[in-house]
Parts: sequence; structure tokens; C-alpha cells
Amino acid sequence: MYPKSIQKLIELFRKFPTIGPRTASRFVFYLLKLPSSEVVQLLAAIQQLKQLVKLCAWCFDPFEVKEDEANTGLCSICRDPSRDKTLLCVVEKESDLEALEKTKSYTGLYFILGGNVGQLKKEDLQNIRVEELKARLKAQNPKEVILATNLTTEGETTALYLERVLQPLGVEIKRLGRGLPIGSELEYADEETLRQALAARR
Amino acid sequence: MYPKSIQKLIELFRKFPTIGPRTASRFVFYLLKLPSSEVVQLLAAIQQLKQLVKLCAWCFDPFEVKEDEANTGLCSICRDPSRDKTLLCVVEKESDLEALEKTKSYTGLYFILGGNVGQLKKEDLQNIRVEELKARLKAQNPKEVILATNLTTEGETTALYLERVLQPLGVEIKRLGRGLPIGSELEYADEETLRQALAARR
Amino acid sequence: MYPKSIQKLIELFRKFPTIGPRTASRFVFYLLKLPSSEVVQLLAAIQQLKQLVKLCAWCFDPFEVKEDEANTGLCSICRDPSRDKTLLCVVEKESDLEALEKTKSYTGLYFILGGNVGQLKKEDLQNIRVEELKARLKAQNPKEVILATNLTTEGETTALYLERVLQPLGVEIKRLGRGLPIGSELEYADEETLRQALAARR
Amino acid sequence: MYPKSIQKLIELFRKFPTIGPRTASRFVFYLLKLPSSEVVQLLAAIQQLKQLVKLCAWCFDPFEVKEDEANTGLCSICRDPSRDKTLLCVVEKESDLEALEKTKSYTGLYFILGGNVGQLKKEDLQNIRVEELKARLKAQNPKEVILATNLTTEGETTALYLERVLQPLGVEIKRLGRGLPIGSELEYADEETLRQALAARR
Repeated sequence: MYPKSIQKLIELFRKFPTIGPRTASRFVFYLLKLPSSEVVQLLAAIQQLKQLVKLCAWCFDPFEVKEDEANTGLCSICRDPSRDKTLLCVVEKESDLEALEKTKSYTGLYFILGGNVGQLKKEDLQNIRVEELKARLKAQNPKEVILATNLTTEGETTALYLERVLQPLGVEIKRLGRGLPIGSELEYADEETLRQALAARR
Repeated sequence: MYPKSIQKLIELFRKFPTIGPRTASRFVFYLLKLPSSEVVQLLAAIQQLKQLVKLCAWCFDPFEVKEDEANTGLCSICRDPSRDKTLLCVVEKESDLEALEKTKSYTGLYFILGGNVGQLKKEDLQNIRVEELKARLKAQNPKEVILATNLTTEGETTALYLERVLQPLGVEIKRLGRGLPIGSELEYADEETLRQALAARR
Repeated sequence: MYPKSIQKLIELFRKFPTIGPRTASRFVFYLLKLPSSEVVQLLAAIQQLKQLVKLCAWCFDPFEVKEDEANTGLCSICRDPSRDKTLLCVVEKESDLEALEKTKSYTGLYFILGGNVGQLKKEDLQNIRVEELKARLKAQNPKEVILATNLTTEGETTALYLERVLQPLGVEIKRLGRGLPIGSELEYADEETLRQALAARR
Repeated sequence: MYPKSIQKLIELFRKFPTIGPRTASRFVFYLLKLPSSEVVQLLAAIQQLKQLVKLCAWCFDPFEVKEDEANTGLCSICRDPSRDKTLLCVVEKESDLEALEKTKSYTGLYFILGGNVGQLKKEDLQNIRVEELKARLKAQNPKEVILATNLTTEGETTALYLERVLQPLGVEIKRLGRGLPIGSELEYADEETLRQALAARR
């Protein structure tokens, strides 16, 4: 058994996403060997993260406060006047937004749900920003909302749930195109994907 | 080293698709243990395959000669009067046809290329049935051809090559829909697939 | 669904070790494309295997009949006068014998059990050549028997079972050395292997 | 692109063992969502690690200073009077010591090298505590030293190097037992491991 201070930190690192006990203990030994100056740097970077980064008031993507010179409370995408305000893309989390930005082919705005509705249990529904999304739609009034949740069971359930919630608002609701991904082979594609690919042929 | 008769058969089994030396030798020991009656059964089944199965004159899918009572030279799909003759789906190989049939959502006819054009080298072009496809199009005269090659580099090259070859024939040419497959997550999708999914939103 | 002759052969190939339905069907399409001359070659090789190869009367390893000019009924290892007859190594199957021969560091004789005792059920016990092994020991009268079964649960159970059966015969019984394999790291070794490696340090 | 404070912390997390860019960014979003109280807890745990944990003066395993009431500068294993001082087990790193302790079958003392000699380059040799090991041997004067480095190329090279360095000291040097690990199959074992397993049969 490792000493308490080590055990304590291993447990905290185990809560980090994807980290098991073995990697958590490697993190601790890494820190033990790290020169004090670099540990200080790490501690400072974590503290600064909490001090300098805020969530955007519109889309909930994190942004650096000091870059928001006019003190709008908005991230750089939401502040950008060249983005198309008639489009709103709803994603589950920050890295999904980042993935879509990397394609350089979407010019509208985003909204981060902060998760998905999971099994549609009461506590799952509180996991995502539904009221904030409704308020956002009223304020932005886009022509089209793209529900870009993952194509997992949880993501699909989330999109169906949001479709029902947003319907009364009268906005056009779309989903990302389904079909065969680049590099795929028909023989290994699942039936439903093939069915979608046949239906969406063009 | 195994005895010659074993070594010989191992080498023949190694030519089977996906089979390495270890599995090939396991096949031989499997046959050595198999009762003679079952070996006879296997040999008969291989011989019958070559005797009873022919390639369809239209689509090149293998079919059982004796089921073709009217001696049409056609497989059961091509013989089926209820299939939609205005549609022709071009695939690389038999198992791709089988995968599309399993979706139960395609009602047209097929054409099996017998491979792909690979790197577009001269010998690669002889790998696929281009002349047969052109003759088939003239005979069937479908309204729409679906180039359902794989979304791999070789499959895409094949589709581009066929598009160029078939253009003078004036038929409408389509491809399978691209996009996110069922079960996928945005974060792990490649950029091109995301781009296609955005373009094909609906 | 594939035609009957294809379906039949797919089912026979599915019985081959490690082969699932997809690979089995690829085997059939491979054979359909194969020139008739090569199919004839394959059929001949399978027939010759059953005609030319016999199991050694002593160790049950397969050998080529025609190489056994003196008609001893023995494989080349058992016929080899330079092999050490005071040692007998008992293995589960042919490929284990082959693996040990490749080390070029064992000079004794072998005995192939033909399997393992599995869960020690009655039918499992009939899976292995126990009576043949006892007869062999009486005939060869080696000084040392090495029970070289796998270190899996089934292999270990088989070794324990054989130890009990062979004890009355008064021969010295050994097992292969346990410990850390080449290339391994302590951190990823299981506890029992580490315990054995500590006990067997030298 | 993420804002600077996020990018900075992603880069620091990427230096953690086994962590790539995607996981590093997931760490940052995890911290952004974490309540401030838990971030404070994490920062405190990292600071305490550096303040409360020291490396043992004998074996270099980290230990909690406050548990060392008599202020010996030694970890709990080195302080334990019941451990066998005639045995010294030399390992590459902390987690190797932990793995051996879990077997509960080693009762001697340890020495952590802090790495391995890699390719035996000059800078690699400074990676490990050779002088400290020699000093330790003179102070402890054990009967037996177990060089329990990994069985990787680097670990083997390290053991060979240490054997040469320690030989003049006249202590008995042993290595961990090599052979087949629990659960292994002969067919898949590498030749050298099988050779060792044959040599170490018992």
C-alpha cells in the first residue's frame, strides 16, 4: 500500500476521465519526480484556468475573460459578427463543437447542452441546458436549428427529446446527415447505416 | 518441420483469404482428425460447388443451376419479375450485394464488378467487368445507376472511373449517401465525414 | 441468402477451427473464382493427406507413410536413434510438439495426448489418450516424464490428473518451469507468475 | 482553437505519462466543470504530496514523513524490523516494488534504481542510482541480491550492467525465474521462453 498522501492523490486522479488506478499512480510518481518549479507551473495553470476562463453566456463554450475586451460575456465565436446568426448548431459537449469547427465548413453559431439525457430519467433531464436553449432560441431567432448530438442511443434520445421540446417554437429543425463514413466498406457496415445510405443516395 | 503432404496442404490453405501459417496448420490437423465420411462430404461439397453453381449472365452473382428451371442463365434476383428494373446497383463483390439485400430496402437489380480498379494501373482495369457493365446498361436501360463501391480509396477511384466511362450513356448516376454512421460520436469522426454530414443535414 | 450449394459449403467451412460465417463465405467465393486446375490440386492434396499421412504408433504425431521405409509405423522423431529415450515429453497437441521442436533444445521423445481433460467430466477424460500413455510408459520406460500441458486451467487440470494416474508407475514426473516470460514487465505480470518467479530465482 | 489558458493546461497534461491531446483536453473540461471546492482539494493534495512525501534514504521508495516518528529518514518497509536484511531486491521503479509486495511472498528489503540503463549510453547510465546501490550494499551487507529488472531489452541490459558492477563486491547475485507465465499456451510462447521453461523444469 502506498502512503496516505500518495493514496489520496491517486484517488483524486482516478476521478479524471478515462483514468484507472494504474495510470493514476503513474501520475503521482510523475509529479514526485517533477522539479518543484514545474509543479508550481502546473498548480498555477490550474488556478488560472478557474480564474481566467468563463463559460460563454450564449453558447456555454469556455472562453478567456481578458480576450473579451468589450466585456460582452461572450466567447470569440458568439462575438464574431461574420458568423451566420440564422443557423444554430446544438452539440452535447465542448469537444463536439471543436470537431465541427475543424471542418471549417460550418459558419453558424453553437449551443453546448453540457451532456445528454441518457435514459430520460428525471435527473438525466436536469443534466442538459434545456431552459437555456429555449431562451437562446427566443433571443437569437435562427431560421434553422441543427441537432448535432452523437448518433449513440443517448445522443439520439436527446435529439428526439429536444425535437419535442422545440417544436412549439416553430423553428426548422434538422439533423446531421447519416450514411457511410469515409473509408468504410459495405460488408462491415451495419444494416441501419446501409439503409440510411441507400435512402440518402444522390 | 511437418511432413510433405501436410506442408503442401498448409501452403494451399495459406492462399485462402485471411489465413496465416498457424491457422492453415490448424486446418490440416482438423482434417486429419475428421472422420473419413466427413472429409468425403467436404470434398463432394467443393466439387458440387464448381459443378452446380454458375455466375449469373446479367449480374455475375453465383446461383444454383438447377433452380433456374427455365434455363435462363440468370440468378434468382435477376429472374424475379417483381424487382425494379429501372434501378441498377453496381457493387464490388458478392458480399456487398448480400449486405445490401439484408437491409430489405433495395428493390432494384445488381451488377457485380468482381473487384475494384485499385491504383488505376492497366492490369487493375482488367480486374473489373467494365465492358460487361456497359452491355448490361444497354440491355436493361435503367433510369438510375447507383455506384455502391466501398468508401475506401480503391472504391472511390473505381466509382470516379466508372462515372467517366458511363457518362456518354446518358443514365442518371448516383452514389450511396455519406455521413455519420449509426452509433458514431462527433468527437471521433474524421473531418471529411463531418463535412459530408453537415452538407447532407436534413 | 446464398444458393444451397454455397450455403452447404459455408457451413462445412464454419466447422474449421477459428472460422466464422463471414470468413467461411469468403472461402467459398475464393473457390468459385479459383481456376479448376487449382481446385483439383486442393482436392487431391486433401485426399492425399488422408491416404499418405498416418499417426505415429508411439507418439501419435502425423507422419508420411512413404518416408517410413522400414514400415515401423513410427514418425521420424520416434525412428531417430539419436533421440534420448530416457525422456518423454507429454503435450496436448501437434502444434505444441512443433513449438518445442523449434527451440532445438529438447532431445527426448514426445507423446501427444490429443487434447486436455477440460472440466474433468467423464466425456472429457475420453478426449485424451491415457491408456495409450500408460502403455507407452511401460514400453519405453523413460527416467523422466515432462508434463508439458498448457498453463491454462484446462492444461493444469490435465497435468494434475495425469500426475495422479502416472504416480503408481514410479517414473519421475516434472513440469515446465514457470516464471516471467521474455519481454515481460513486473508491473503487468499477474501475482501468481511473480510468486513463481520469486520462488524460482537463480 | 481553445483559449490560451486551456491550451496551456492541455500542454502540461500532455506531459503526464500515457496522455495524448484528446485526453488532456478532456482533463481540462473536467476541471472546468469541477466545483471550486474540489479543485482546491486537488491543488492541496498535489502541494501536500511535495511537502509530506520524501524518498526513503535506503531504498528510494516514497514515504510519508509524519509516519516516520523516530525521524529515521526511512520508509515503512526499511523501518520494519521483521523484514529479512539478508535479502535485497533491486527494481526499476516504484510500481515494480508494489507488484512484488502484492505477492506477499517476499520478505526482504528493496532498492529502487529509478529507471534503467536504456541503450547503455553515457546519459542513460546517469539515469539509475548505481553509486547509491553500491553504498547501500556496503551498509546492509546482504547475502543475496535479486536483480528484479523487467525482462525487456532495457531491463536485461540493466541487469547485465549491474552484475558487472556488483561482482567485485562478492555478494551472491540472482535473477527472477524465467519460464511460462500462468495462463500461457506453448503454441504462442516465444522460443526463448520455451527454452527457459525446458531448462527450468522441475
